This record gives sequence, structure tokens and C-alpha cells, in this order.
Amino acid sequence: MYTGRAYRLLESHGIRVGERVVVRTSTGEHRGILMPRYELADDRHLVIKLKSGYNVGVGIERIVSIARDEEGEGVEEERIGKGRGIDEQSLRVGVGGGVHHGKDRVRLAMISTGGTIASRIDYRTGGVKAALTADELYSIVPELSSIAYMDAEVLMQEYSENLTPMHWSMMAERVGEKVLQGYDGVIVAHGTDTMHYTSSALSFALQNLPVPVVLVGAQRSSDRPSSDAATNLIGAALFAANADAAGVFVAMHNDRSDGRIAVHVGTRVRKNHTSSRDAFRSIDMEPAALVDLNTREIKMDSNLGIMGRDTSRRPLIRSRFDGRVALIKFHPGFDPGIIGYLIGKGYRGLVLEGTGLGHVSKGCFNAIRDAVDSMLVCMTSQCIWGRLRMTVYETGRDLLRIGVIPLDTLPETALTKTMWVLANSTSLDEARSMLLSEMAMEFK
Amino acid sequence: MYTGRAYRLLESHGIRVGERVVVRTSTGEHRGILMPRYELADDRHLVIKLKSGYNVGVGIERIVSIARDEEGEGVEEERIGKGRGIDEQSLRVGVGGGVHHGKDRVRLAMISTGGTIASRIDYRTGGVKAALTADELYSIVPELSSIAYMDAEVLMQEYSENLTPMHWSMMAERVGEKVLQGYDGVIVAHGTDTMHYTSSALSFALQNLPVPVVLVGAQRSSDRPSSDAATNLIGAALFAANADAAGVFVAMHNDRSDGRIAVHVGTRVRKNHTSSRDAFRSIDMEPAALVDLNTREIKMDSNLGIMGRDTSRRPLIRSRFDGRVALIKFHPGFDPGIIGYLIGKGYRGLVLEGTGLGHVSKGCFNAIRDAVDSMLVCMTSQCIWGRLRMTVYETGRDLLRIGVIPLDTLPETALTKTMWVLANSTSLDEARSMLLSEMAMEFK
Repeated sequence: MYTGRAYRLLESHGIRVGERVVVRTSTGEHRGILMPRYELADDRHLVIKLKSGYNVGVGIERIVSIARDEEGEGVEEERIGKGRGIDEQSLRVGVGGGVHHGKDRVRLAMISTGGTIASRIDYRTGGVKAALTADELYSIVPELSSIAYMDAEVLMQEYSENLTPMHWSMMAERVGEKVLQGYDGVIVAHGTDTMHYTSSALSFALQNLPVPVVLVGAQRSSDRPSSDAATNLIGAALFAANADAAGVFVAMHNDRSDGRIAVHVGTRVRKNHTSSRDAFRSIDMEPAALVDLNTREIKMDSNLGIMGRDTSRRPLIRSRFDGRVALIKFHPGFDPGIIGYLIGKGYRGLVLEGTGLGHVSKGCFNAIRDAVDSMLVCMTSQCIWGRLRMTVYETGRDLLRIGVIPLDTLPETALTKTMWVLANSTSLDEARSMLLSEMAMEFK
Repeated sequence: MYTGRAYRLLESHGIRVGERVVVRTSTGEHRGILMPRYELADDRHLVIKLKSGYNVGVGIERIVSIARDEEGEGVEEERIGKGRGIDEQSLRVGVGGGVHHGKDRVRLAMISTGGTIASRIDYRTGGVKAALTADELYSIVPELSSIAYMDAEVLMQEYSENLTPMHWSMMAERVGEKVLQGYDGVIVAHGTDTMHYTSSALSFALQNLPVPVVLVGAQRSSDRPSSDAATNLIGAALFAANADAAGVFVAMHNDRSDGRIAVHVGTRVRKNHTSSRDAFRSIDMEPAALVDLNTREIKMDSNLGIMGRDTSRRPLIRSRFDGRVALIKFHPGFDPGIIGYLIGKGYRGLVLEGTGLGHVSKGCFNAIRDAVDSMLVCMTSQCIWGRLRMTVYETGRDLLRIGVIPLDTLPETALTKTMWVLANSTSLDEARSMLLSEMAMEFK
């Protein structure tokens, strides 16, 4: 996994990843396990896991000698000389956790919520377990310290399929606090399964943001050689620290190489692949930005009208969601009795994922007529791409007449918005008019 | 809408689409309304709508004179001389309906089921209505007659959002009859909204086919200038008549130009855009074939293992579906009570559209435990692209232990297959093992 100069150094000494090594530099000595590197362009550092559990990055040009550490199990703590080299120092900043204030350095908050990006392989079961703390995660991506001071904390440890609207509220509140504390950006490490639901939920809960809030995940766990955890995190941090942008975003690989991270608008992104690195895609729009990991350049799409960064802007934080909303995908043979079930359970919202331009069968009309009396019934399309257009065909016009609300957004975004407007309005009429007002670039 | 030579001819005579014209050829005379052409490469024909309602195509090189018909409203029936030109004749074959047997010509059956491809604008309401019969449809696409003898009939007239498993059974039976009658291919004109559900349903109901069955639709109605009805039909007919392929396919535009029609495997295709011509996409595979409308060349993808045409092959026709199967999309805040509702209603199958590699929240586990006693519970992924992999994370392994069946197919295909296996098996165990056997190229 080491490349270029680092690879040649290790090769020439016959040292392999996972072996105990002792590395001497001009300023001190490190003993520990040689860790794998992630697929980054950087071939100028070795990473050594110390007995303390922390990882240290050692600049290759500073290495005086490297050898297998024959002392075996009894690995000693590292010994660092007095005159630390800049290179080693910079790689260790932030490892101890906590905010590292600096007058002229950017400060980012990182909130870990679980998922693959914060997980590692459980060698006992062979599967993947949520296990890494945010600090550990940070310690294995030493490059982050060259981007900003980082304050990392664990808010929760959940696979994202287990997250509920209650968890969105917790995240919105914690992120809101960080924003009010004056951080220059907030990174939320998140499982990828429902990251796009959360990003759209936070987009409504956290409006008028002064700085970027960037959700980031990984498709492969951070101790797998092909992990995208490190590169996604670096891309997210570069954007959060430097982009002239504010709002809620998702940062993930733009393609299957490691060169570029795409930053998507939080309400317009979807996980479109079960496993590939570039699973997340902006739908019916371009990504807000591309971050080049080699040059560290951020290319914003200036046509999209992304709000700029403005630390004097006061955020609107409204973190409540009404969970009594269902997202229902229509299909041939769909049983309208499910709508009746939701009415009976006191649901207040129903987002239909209809076919084509926004259709369901005539057989559903009566159930929908019953539903509109007591809840918001919204239409979206299971096609995923393309505009909702309910005036073209008889079916759509009939549904509009019945009182179905056309929501020209992703179905997942329609769900989170409906949950949010219901919790932040005093009547169905008010909620309906909020639904039809654009709040977070959610309309196609 | 006329191009090239046809355009220049009309331009030089100052004649516009919609005007009454009289056209004389070396063999006769036509009076009627100059119809718009569809966006085809063919610039060698004018289309005239006769008083009879039929359209006739007139080869430009045969035209002796053309003029605006100043007789106004009283358009006369066409008068054709004795020695009809080949060109005119070929364009009129089939207009009268019924099978036109010819010893050495390919015969296709066309079954119309409704939808945009068989619809036109209702100028009263401004919307689109299902109205055209298959014969009318055929008469406005005279190019079809140069491809094959066509036997066209109307089986039903439904927007596809109104179709149910019962309609799939009707279609399977009618298509099956046509196959047994020895047609060289069958075209099913269908609404696009649920065409991919129907194509997968027919893929299970009609196995071991000797010839191709091609579903075809249109994203814009056939009397709109930008209609894709004619080009899709021509592509479908070229494939059904000439391709060395058997099975169930969907033929629609490959891209936003008019040059190529993509032919997709019936179980691996999805409507991915609400309105664009290239809405239908093969998922995680290439299209089975591309049909070039200009050269009429069919380029099969030989890597896919598509079954070849073999008129001695005996089809397996099993047209029944069990409608007691639901497709449920999981989402944050999903109410497992819906699963309880389905159990109570006597459902026999549940296809979950889970997140990522095939996950739902822990909160659903108990409801799924209850469900597996009385029904098949299958998992698919709402990501759409990528393999289902339920062994990677704890959540997936837990669900497998509970008895969830991993179905590495599109969710829509999982639904139709589950409905089909339940109607064609005698026990849940048998149905389960049928689910896990590939039948129609449905596995990714």
C-alpha cells in the first residue's frame, strides 16, 4: 500500500506492513507497528502505530535509520528528542483531542455518528464493526492536521440504517452548537446507507448557515487497503475549511479513482450504488464543488447559486421532526389498504413515490381522498431523475384535484421535508404552504 | 419536421405541414393533409392523411407534381392508378389490419395495451388521452411495413400505472398465443410508467421463448413533434424481426438523439427519468443490443449470453401471479407496523427495498421475524446499482439469520418474481428455492 519513495525505502530494508519497527530520525526515535497507508498520492510518510494507540506520521526525508524491531512484544513508547522536526510535529497536532486554538488557523469541528467511516474489521467475526472513536479516526489520517485545527467528538455510534428522525434532531442540535461556537466548518462522519436522508434533514433543520456543514462517509472501512475513509475525510476537511460556501453538503468520491472528492448539495444527493466509491450522486444537477486531492484546489460550480460563507450570518436552528410521515413506493398490485392503515395510526404525512411524472393507479384514489383530510399527501417520482409534472396526463390532474401536493424533489428529501414542516407549523395549511416553498435548494 | 430532400421539395413549393395538398405520381394521385414526419433520418417520403383516415407515404422520387389543394374542405378520396409503384405499395401494406402472409417475409404480431405510445393529445383538455388503436398507430408509422408483415391488435387501453398482476397474466397469455402461432416476434406497445415491471413479469411468465418479445413505449405522444413513438416502434420492429435473440426485451431510445434504439433485457431495465427519451436504462449491465435506425444494423452485445432465436424451441407459458406481495421501501422512521399489517392481511411475500448492501433498522427485526413464518421476505437495495451483499455488516448477517432471502436483482424484478414463484409453487420452501434460482438473467 506504500508507493513511490516510501515503498522503495521499505523494500530496500525488507520491512512489511504490520511488522514492528524502530525508526530513528534526526530528532528522535519511534517504536511501533508499521501501519498500512491509504491510497493517497502522498508517498512521503510512514505511519507507525505507537504503544499508546496513537499513530505518528514520519517524514521520509527525516529518517536516519529504519529496522525491524527485534524486541518483539515489548514495544516501548516512542522517544522523541527535543528539537522536533516540523514534519513530525505537524502530523501529531490534534491527536490528543480537544480544540487547538490558533489565531490564524482554521478551526473545524468533527462529529462522529458511526458507520463505516468510523468502523473497522472485527477479526473475530470477519465482519465490520462500528468501533473507531473520532479521535482514533483522526489519528489515522494525519494529513487532516495540515488542513485545520480539529475538534473531534463522538456523538453516537450507529450504523446509519438504525438512525431515526430523533437522531437527526440530536445531530442538528450538536452541529448547531458548533456553528454558534464559531467553528469555521463542521464535519459529520456518518454511515453511508442513509447519509442522504440525514443531509436533507439537516438542510431543513439548519438554515441560513454561516459556514459549511459537511457529511462524510466511507464505502469501505478505514482499515481496509481500499478504504475511501481517509480521502473522503481529507476532501471534506478541505472543503469545510476553505470553500466559500455555506449550507449542508455531502462529500464523497467523485469517481472510482482517488483524485477528486465531489461535494453535493445536501437535498439533491442520493446513494446510487451499494458498494462503489462514487456511490453518491447529485441528481439533476452538478455537484456543488470538486476538490482535487493532489492540488487541494476547490472548484465551485458558480452556476448553482450556492450561498457564500459569512460568519456574521445568524443560523436558523429548528431541530424537530415529526416522525408520523411514511414514504410509500407505489407499484403494480399496490394495496391502498396501507394508506388506510396509516390514516388509522394517526399519520400526518404520506410521501408517495409514484411512477413516471407522478402517478399512482386509479385504485388508490379513494384511499388518497380519505387521507388528504387528515394528512399531507405528497407526490414524488420513483424514476429518480427528471421533473415531476402532474398536469400532463389525466392521472396526474385527477390526483392534483384530489389534493395531492406535487413535490419536485427527491423522494428522500420529500420525506425529511414533510417531517420537518409538520413539526414546525401549527396547521396542515401552513405546513402545505411551507412544503411548496423552497428552503434549501431542494426543488429540481 | 421534414428534412433534407423532402424539406427542400416542400420549401420550393411553399407548402407547410397541415395544409391540404394534391400529389401526383407516375402511378396516381393523392389528396389529403400533409402530415408531420417523426424525427427519422428518412427524408425520402411525404406522409399524406387521406379522407379515409389512413396515412399514405409517397416516395419523393415518384412525385410528378405537388400543390396546395385549393378545393378546401371537400377533400376527395385518393385516386390511385393501376400500376402502383413499389414504393407506395410497400408503405400501405398492413394498413387494413390483419395478418398479411407472405412466404418469405417476416411476420410480427403487435399487441397494444395503452399508454403514451398509443395516445394522442386531447385538444379539448390539453392533456394526453389513450386513444389510438394499434391500427391507427401503425398507419402513422408507414416505415413498419418495410420491416415485416404486421398483425396489430388492441388487447387493452390502460395507462400503465393502472396495470396490475392480472393484466400481466392477460398479456402473457396473449403473447404466448402469438408465439405459439408462429410469429417471428411479438411487439407489446405499453405505457412507460410500469413497463419495466411488466417486462420482468413477462420474463418469468414466458420462459424458453423461441423468438423475441419486445415491449415498447413512448415518452411523448405520437402526435407531438418530438414524439419518440415512431422511432421506438421502428427500433423494436427491426429487433423483433431480425435479431438473433429470444426472450423478453424493452426497446427505447438509447440517448437523446434519434439515431439509436437500445434493447434491454426485460429483468434488468428501469425507468430512470420522468420525461427524457432515454429514460430506460439497463442496470449494472450493457443493453442487449443497439439498433441503428439509419443503417438498420443491430449490434448485439455478445458477452451477455442472450439466448438465440430458435423456432423449434417450445416456450414455457405460466401466466399466473400471486398479487399478495408487497414492495416496501425502508426509510429512517419506517414503521414496522406496516409489516404487521401485511401479515394480518394474509400476504405471502414481502420485498424490502433496503439501504446500502441490503439493510433495514434493528427496529424492524421483530416484525420480520413474525413475517418469515408465513411469507417470503426478500431483500433488495434502494441504491439501484451495485450488488446486494448481506454478509459484510452485522445488520445484513442478522437479517440472513432471521430468514431474509437476499435477492440480487432490481427491486421491481424481485417483486414480479416473488409474485410469480408464489403462484407457481406448492410450498413456501419450493417458492424460496425458485427465488434463488436464476430464470431470466435477473441476477446482477
